[in-house]
Amino acid sequence: MRFSLFYEHQLPRPWADGQELRLYQDALEQVEIADRIGFDYVWEVEHHFLEEYSHSSAPEVFLAAASQRTKRIRLGHGIVQLPPAINHPARIAERIATLDLVSNGRVDFGTGEASSSAELGGFGVRRTDKRAQWQDAIDAVTRMFVEEPFAGWSSPHFRMPPRNVIPKPVQKPHPPLWVACSRRETIHFAARNGIGALSFSFVEPEDAGRWVDEYYRIIASDECVPAGFAVNPNVTVVLPMMLHEDEATAIDRGIDGAHFFGFALAHYYGTTPHDPGRTDVWREFEERRAARGFDRDQIIANAEALNVNVGSLRGAVGTPDQVADLIRRYESAGVDQVSFVLQAGPNRHEHICESLELFGKAILPRFTEGREEREAAKAERLAPAIEAALARRRPARTLPPGYRIDEDAEVSRALRGSRSSRPRRPLRDEVRAAGRKRAAQGFYRLVHGRSDAQIERRFGPGAQRVLFAGMARAYDPSASGGFRGELEFRLTRDGRPATAWTVEVGDRRARAKPGRADDAALTLIVGAADFLRILAGDANPASLLMDGRLKLRGDFELAPRLSEMFGGPSPY
Amino acid sequence: MRFSLFYEHQLPRPWADGQELRLYQDALEQVEIADRIGFDYVWEVEHHFLEEYSHSSAPEVFLAAASQRTKRIRLGHGIVQLPPAINHPARIAERIATLDLVSNGRVDFGTGEASSSAELGGFGVRRTDKRAQWQDAIDAVTRMFVEEPFAGWSSPHFRMPPRNVIPKPVQKPHPPLWVACSRRETIHFAARNGIGALSFSFVEPEDAGRWVDEYYRIIASDECVPAGFAVNPNVTVVLPMMLHEDEATAIDRGIDGAHFFGFALAHYYGTTPHDPGRTDVWREFEERRAARGFDRDQIIANAEALNVNVGSLRGAVGTPDQVADLIRRYESAGVDQVSFVLQAGPNRHEHICESLELFGKAILPRFTEGREEREAAKAERLAPAIEAALARRRPARTLPPGYRIDEDAEVSRALRGSRSSRPRRPLRDEVRAAGRKRAAQGFYRLVHGRSDAQIERRFGPGAQRVLFAGMARAYDPSASGGFRGELEFRLTRDGRPATAWTVEVGDRRARAKPGRADDAALTLIVGAADFLRILAGDANPASLLMDGRLKLRGDFELAPRLSEMFGGPSPY
Repeated sequence: MRFSLFYEHQLPRPWADGQELRLYQDALEQVEIADRIGFDYVWEVEHHFLEEYSHSSAPEVFLAAASQRTKRIRLGHGIVQLPPAINHPARIAERIATLDLVSNGRVDFGTGEASSSAELGGFGVRRTDKRAQWQDAIDAVTRMFVEEPFAGWSSPHFRMPPRNVIPKPVQKPHPPLWVACSRRETIHFAARNGIGALSFSFVEPEDAGRWVDEYYRIIASDECVPAGFAVNPNVTVVLPMMLHEDEATAIDRGIDGAHFFGFALAHYYGTTPHDPGRTDVWREFEERRAARGFDRDQIIANAEALNVNVGSLRGAVGTPDQVADLIRRYESAGVDQVSFVLQAGPNRHEHICESLELFGKAILPRFTEGREEREAAKAERLAPAIEAALARRRPARTLPPGYRIDEDAEVSRALRGSRSSRPRRPLRDEVRAAGRKRAAQGFYRLVHGRSDAQIERRFGPGAQRVLFAGMARAYDPSASGGFRGELEFRLTRDGRPATAWTVEVGDRRARAKPGRADDAALTLIVGAADFLRILAGDANPASLLMDGRLKLRGDFELAPRLSEMFGGPSPY
Repeated sequence: MRFSLFYEHQLPRPWADGQELRLYQDALEQVEIADRIGFDYVWEVEHHFLEEYSHSSAPEVFLAAASQRTKRIRLGHGIVQLPPAINHPARIAERIATLDLVSNGRVDFGTGEASSSAELGGFGVRRTDKRAQWQDAIDAVTRMFVEEPFAGWSSPHFRMPPRNVIPKPVQKPHPPLWVACSRRETIHFAARNGIGALSFSFVEPEDAGRWVDEYYRIIASDECVPAGFAVNPNVTVVLPMMLHEDEATAIDRGIDGAHFFGFALAHYYGTTPHDPGRTDVWREFEERRAARGFDRDQIIANAEALNVNVGSLRGAVGTPDQVADLIRRYESAGVDQVSFVLQAGPNRHEHICESLELFGKAILPRFTEGREEREAAKAERLAPAIEAALARRRPARTLPPGYRIDEDAEVSRALRGSRSSRPRRPLRDEVRAAGRKRAAQGFYRLVHGRSDAQIERRFGPGAQRVLFAGMARAYDPSASGGFRGELEFRLTRDGRPATAWTVEVGDRRARAKPGRADDAALTLIVGAADFLRILAGDANPASLLMDGRLKLRGDFELAPRLSEMFGGPSPY
């Protein structure tokens, strides 16, 4: 079991001058204490415009400051909002890597989609798009960490030409990945992506067991196709906390914060009207807390075991024995980390510091014995499954040498693509992109590790016809750089000509037909199996070229455009 | 005279594992020394993808880390790239404010447009757009600092609905503003915007005087219309530096760094081809430095006065006496700050630290005496001009209460607007927007501080006809929320009806005509002078409503949409 602090930087109204300064400076002091005591992580959200609920809109800055006040505590983004309209994927890769450098490799990279109307409306992110944007951006960002140079991107969500995104993170291949799970079902999603689950839905320890079991079952199954280049099998639950030897005092100090946390969360994630700069969430809380199930008077000290959710949100507000018991129950359920929100609502800095010190003295020592051994055993147990999962992820790409930065072409491609084409048929585009992605991953699995003969058996001329027709359908005129003409593909078997295909590229669409071209602008001569490996992302055309397994005739400069012209992610 | 360090985080090839970590950790140590010694600022660039030349892509992170290693040194962004495709304006306001909070008010906010092909092509920013994007974004970002809530934005460059952008900076109204001047002419531009000039073009002290004089002449003139809500009258020059009591040793330690700095700058800002991840800038430097004017052998120790530019870039590489003499000459020219690049090319950490210590002992004390008094005198001298300049800036807006976050409407407005509409007629849009802006600022000056009678004299029915026709032309159907119908404006004089105008809103365009409406959906009754004040941004419709000076009849909900419907920046 690992322990962490969780920060939203809450600041209930009314506001006075200097309060935000105090809030930030106090939080830095708290993190310093947590590091000294032996907390393992500090997490900080990224939220925009959520007045009172979260004044933490630039966590990269706070965590970087915290890195120089601490020695070993890990610095977690809980989370970075991935939609490209909020944070450009390159800016995300840059800030994560830089934080890893100033902290000497202590970053955990939590991710999320953004969920509140304030944020989605504020940045113009379509709710129906955000899951697809997350999936797209995490793929791109993790490639920016490992690809040198990043081979470029072209999706309905963002476009970027090849660039070496620098600096690179200290941790290789990249800091551990997490995803925020505001609904419990997202825990399954986290497992399918091979990343840690940061669970914000308050779940009783006894229910958590089932979610954790399913999480680890998926991690170990074929369903797990890692979103990054490393798997991070971990489940964290987030709870409000306040500690005191006297239970009534703990409640008195902590329950308003815990309740405001829940109330304000519901305010921003529900349908409550919000007038920016005007709505007073704290006043609404005081007026309506009881009606919303956050009744202060219902919470009484009775020295019973803590229940998280029942009888209004109480979380880990109680005595060291009560909280240790709660943690033990989560531990039995297989939860890997409990994260505590102490800075919530009107909770006071000195009470937070006192709670932390008490936690260090009275709780932490009960959970550290044998921890390293248990974690090592877990890692060993999961190692084969993780290795198998990583083999299912499409590998890092290698851009062939010879790409040249070309500002004019790159800018006009960027402006023609991405947003401008999106609003027209967003849903169709997205379904297509998702379909392409699934198809590509399935394809990769069919090809990867097979011999030429095996691949050729599976993809005879009939299958080739389907693949070329698909290529032609995926043609994107905006990526053609103005090219119109014929592309010829001569596929060989055992070095001898076997089949030939021609793709005619026109102004708006492309058409595939069997046979040689009349007047090919570019001819590719390649083994049928190698060609399928290229299409599947299992072989790198640049290496094939250098090995003489791919030959080009005609306009060499067209070659690097082909992938992008036919819906591929990057211009090799 | 103030002194600063300047960081690009340069890392010439070949690269070894752990070098970026060392680079960042060393830089933090150097900044700590600079703070102890009495340097006034540390500046850090924001550059993307400029391998070897600058591994500083997330300065908000490095500066935040530096904030906790230092006590009084100011933390300068030199600069933040303002085009919205690189950094969303809200994300900029958030990170600047957060850095101001963790550093207890020590941020200087330098800004720029981005200039290299690697960056413009990488993020898809049109070179012809970037100046307009800078002007647009700095206006929006400074409003985010002071408006509560930010009243929203709608320009060809980005759109955002009203939101309270939090947190707010510690420094009021906001941290001092600067702009990067890569060409000397930009110094005039800085002055016209009332902000500090960070000059990167290496200029001899004797030439600097002319630029500084013109800068301060413009600051004190009508030409100065501040980009922010405070004026920052300062000129900084940037120079490479290395210090040693023995001149030959200083040259030996510092000249390769100074020269690589100049060479790599020319590489990325010129037309040299660059293959991302492949081009070896350091090798090209070694092969071509002499041919490009960076001949190591030409630089000899001869104990003469330093010239910055003549006989290849040497900057402030020399003995304490030489460098102090150079600084004195800049001081005589009226330059306010000299910023030194020590971490350049292959320069070594220990030599940098030694130079800093020597600077603190042998140079700094010569420039501190009487400095506060001189600065106070300068501030007093400029105060009336600054006050006059600030009166020319369009003031902060007040969003009337009653705006409601509406995710669906906001998202579809964002996706319909901004990028999707831009590629069609970018230049025309931009010229129009710039024209509107100039017109609006001129208009504001004509109205601000005048009596009703003065305004009415100037804007009779003829001028009103022009203004209403302009409003109708500026109509943006995407902001109408589906409204079609008549808007009636009854303008009064001394409380009595004087003139009436009707704007007919159709599917695609609006038309203005004199006289009352047949069937007005909304009627505004307001003094002619007050109406002109609203149009000029000199009066707030919400306050006029509350004071009874503006009356509405009909569909009240239409009123907050009017400004945006007719091309205004925000939906009051």
